Amino acid sequence: MQVGEFKVLNEYKKARNAVLMTAHGQIETPIFMPVGTKATVKTMLPEELTDIGFQILLGNTYHLHIRPGEKLIKELGGLHKFMNWDKPILTDSGGFQVFSLSKLRTLTEEGVTFRSHIDGAKLFISPEKSMEIQMDLGADIIMAFDECIPYPATPEQIDESSNMTHRWLKRCQQAMTKKDSLLFGIVQGGLEEKSRLKSMDQICSVDLPGYAMGGFSVGEPIHLMHQLLEKVAYKMPVNKPRYLMGVGTPTDLILAIDSGMDMFDCVIPTRVARNGTLYTWQGKVTIKQAKYRTDPNPLDPECDCYTCKNYSKAYLRHLFNTGEILSSRLNTIHNLYFYNKLIERSREAIRNGIWDEFKDDCLERFSRRP
Amino acid sequence: MQVGEFKVLNEYKKARNAVLMTAHGQIETPIFMPVGTKATVKTMLPEELTDIGFQILLGNTYHLHIRPGEKLIKELGGLHKFMNWDKPILTDSGGFQVFSLSKLRTLTEEGVTFRSHIDGAKLFISPEKSMEIQMDLGADIIMAFDECIPYPATPEQIDESSNMTHRWLKRCQQAMTKKDSLLFGIVQGGLEEKSRLKSMDQICSVDLPGYAMGGFSVGEPIHLMHQLLEKVAYKMPVNKPRYLMGVGTPTDLILAIDSGMDMFDCVIPTRVARNGTLYTWQGKVTIKQAKYRTDPNPLDPECDCYTCKNYSKAYLRHLFNTGEILSSRLNTIHNLYFYNKLIERSREAIRNGIWDEFKDDCLERFSRRP
Repeated sequence: MQVGEFKVLNEYKKARNAVLMTAHGQIETPIFMPVGTKATVKTMLPEELTDIGFQILLGNTYHLHIRPGEKLIKELGGLHKFMNWDKPILTDSGGFQVFSLSKLRTLTEEGVTFRSHIDGAKLFISPEKSMEIQMDLGADIIMAFDECIPYPATPEQIDESSNMTHRWLKRCQQAMTKKDSLLFGIVQGGLEEKSRLKSMDQICSVDLPGYAMGGFSVGEPIHLMHQLLEKVAYKMPVNKPRYLMGVGTPTDLILAIDSGMDMFDCVIPTRVARNGTLYTWQGKVTIKQAKYRTDPNPLDPECDCYTCKNYSKAYLRHLFNTGEILSSRLNTIHNLYFYNKLIERSREAIRNGIWDEFKDDCLERFSRRP
Repeated sequence: MQVGEFKVLNEYKKARNAVLMTAHGQIETPIFMPVGTKATVKTMLPEELTDIGFQILLGNTYHLHIRPGEKLIKELGGLHKFMNWDKPILTDSGGFQVFSLSKLRTLTEEGVTFRSHIDGAKLFISPEKSMEIQMDLGADIIMAFDECIPYPATPEQIDESSNMTHRWLKRCQQAMTKKDSLLFGIVQGGLEEKSRLKSMDQICSVDLPGYAMGGFSVGEPIHLMHQLLEKVAYKMPVNKPRYLMGVGTPTDLILAIDSGMDMFDCVIPTRVARNGTLYTWQGKVTIKQAKYRTDPNPLDPECDCYTCKNYSKAYLRHLFNTGEILSSRLNTIHNLYFYNKLIERSREAIRNGIWDEFKDDCLERFSRRP
C-alpha cells in the first residue's frame, strides 16, 4: 500500500474495519490512539505501548510548541526519535488547547494570539504556523488548524466559525508541504444536524486523505453527540478514514464505531487510571474503596494484562492509598490494555459479522457497577 | 548451602566477596539492596529490578506496620507475594523510623510508644512486637529492634543506650521463632572507637547469622563514619555477613567495602533520581541544567542501562522540567543500574585482585563534575 491509501476490509451496517498506510507503517481501524501530550504517554515506556498492541499515538502541538519547542525536537531528529517511538504519530493542530487552556485569546482571520498557560508568554498560531509546527515535529498525520466552537453557541456563531474553519483548511492545505505526512480536515458545525452537514460539505470538498469530527468534549451532554453522529458520521466520505477527536469512554467508543467512525483518541484511560478508576469487563472499579482492602483477586478476572496477571486488588488499593508512582503505572497499564482489547474485539466482531451482539454485550457490561 | 550459611570466596586486604544463603535463595556480597519502603521500590516493577541484577530488596517495618498493616499482608500470603517479588527480602526493625519519623516518643525498657507520622495514632513497638511484625511480613532477614542513638550524644547516653540495645537483642532472639528467617544484630555505640567496640562485643556475643552497623545517617559528618569503620569494621566476626545500614553515596559504598563491610541499603539512588540527580561514571549530573537543553547524547556513554541506550539528555531534561512520571522512571532505572554495576564491579575487582586500583579510579571519578 502507498502512504495515504485507505482500504475498507469489512463492514457491518455502518461499522467498518479498514487499514490506512502512513510513513511509519500501516494501522488498522477501528483504532484507539493513546495520548502522549508532552512527548510521553504518562507513566508508560514506548515498548510497553507496543506490547499492549498500540499502533499509533497522539502528540499535542500546543504543549510541545510551548515546551520544549518544535525547533528543538526537529534539531534532535523529530518527535519519533526524541521520544523513542518508531510507529505512526498523529499530532493535533493545537486548536483545541488554544481554546481550552490558553488565556486572553484574540481571534482574527489571520489566526489566534494567546498567552501560554505555563508562563503567560504571548504566542500566535495561524493555520500556516500550525502546519509548520507539525511538520517540524515530523507527524505522520497532521490535523488542520480549526476553531473549536464553544458550547452552547448561536446558529450565527456556528455558521461564521465553520466558514472560517473552512477558509483556514484551504490555507492549511497550501502550507502543508511535507510529502509523506497526511493532512486531515476537521468538520465542525456544532451539534445541529443541518449545520454539521454544511460544515462537512465544506471540509470534505477539500480533497484530503482523511477527515475528523471535532468540536466535541466541550461540555455538551454526551447523548447529543451520539444522536448527531448516528445521523451524520456515515455521510463522511466512505473511502477515507473518519476520526472522532478527543472521545471518549468505552461506551462512547462503541456507539461511535456503530455510527461509522474509525479513529479515536482520549486522555480518559490514562487520566482516570492515575485517579484510581479502572475499566473492567464487569464495569468501572474505584480502587480506593474499603471493600477491596483484603481482596486477593485481580482487578478483572477476564483481563490478561500485566497488572491483572500479577497483583491483587488489595495491593493496588494499598499503592493508590499511599500515593505510590507504581499505582499510576499499574493502573495505566490496565486501562490502556482494556481500551486496546475493546478496540481489537470491535475489529474482530465487525470482521466476523457479530458486531450487533458484541455491541449490546459491551453496553450492558459497561453500565454495571461491580 | 544451608539457609544462613555464609562463605567468604575472595578477600583483598579487608574487602571481601562472599555468598549468603537465605530461604529465597543465595545472595552474593558486596551487595546493594534497593529500598522498597511501602512494598514497592518507588517507580519500579519487580521484573525491572531483576533485569538490572538486584538479588534482594529491603522493606520498611515501620511503614508497612502503619499501612497496610502486617496482618493484612500475612493474610494475603506475605510480603513476597503481596508485592510480586520472589527473591530475598530484608526488613528493618522499625527502630530507625520510630526515632526519625514518629512524634511524641516515649522510651522505656519495655519498648517505644509513639504516634504515627500519618494519622497521629498511638502505637507501641517492643523487641517482641518488631519480631512479630517482621515474621508476619515473611522477611528472609530480620533486623533486631535497637535504639538509634541521636547525634551528638554524651558518652553516658551512648553507654546506656547501647546496653539497652544489647538487652533488647536478647529479647529479639527469644522472640524470633521463624525457622527459615535470619536474625541480624545491630551494633550501636556512637562514633567513638571505644564505645563502638564495646557495643560490638556485646552484640556479637549473641550468636546470630549476621551483624549490622547501625546509628549512621543521623546527621554526623560522614568522614567520622568512614574513619570509624576503617578501624572497627574488620573486627566484626569474619565468618558472618556485615551490613552497613542506610548508607550511602557511591563514594560511601566504596570506602565501606574497603573497610570490610558486605551489605548496603540506601534510598539515595531512588530519591535523588526523582529530584533529577544522576550518578554517572563521569560524576554527578543535575539534569535540569540549561546546558543539556539540546544535548543529543546519552546521560552516560559508559552505561548500558535502558535509559542511556534509548534517550538523550535533552529528552530527560524535558521530562524532568515538565514533571512527567516517566522522568522519575527513567532516572530511577539509571541510578539503580549504576549502583548495581558499581557493586558488581566491586565484586569482580576483589575477585581479580585489583581492588585498590578499582577503588582509586572510582573515588577519582565520583569527585568529578561533568
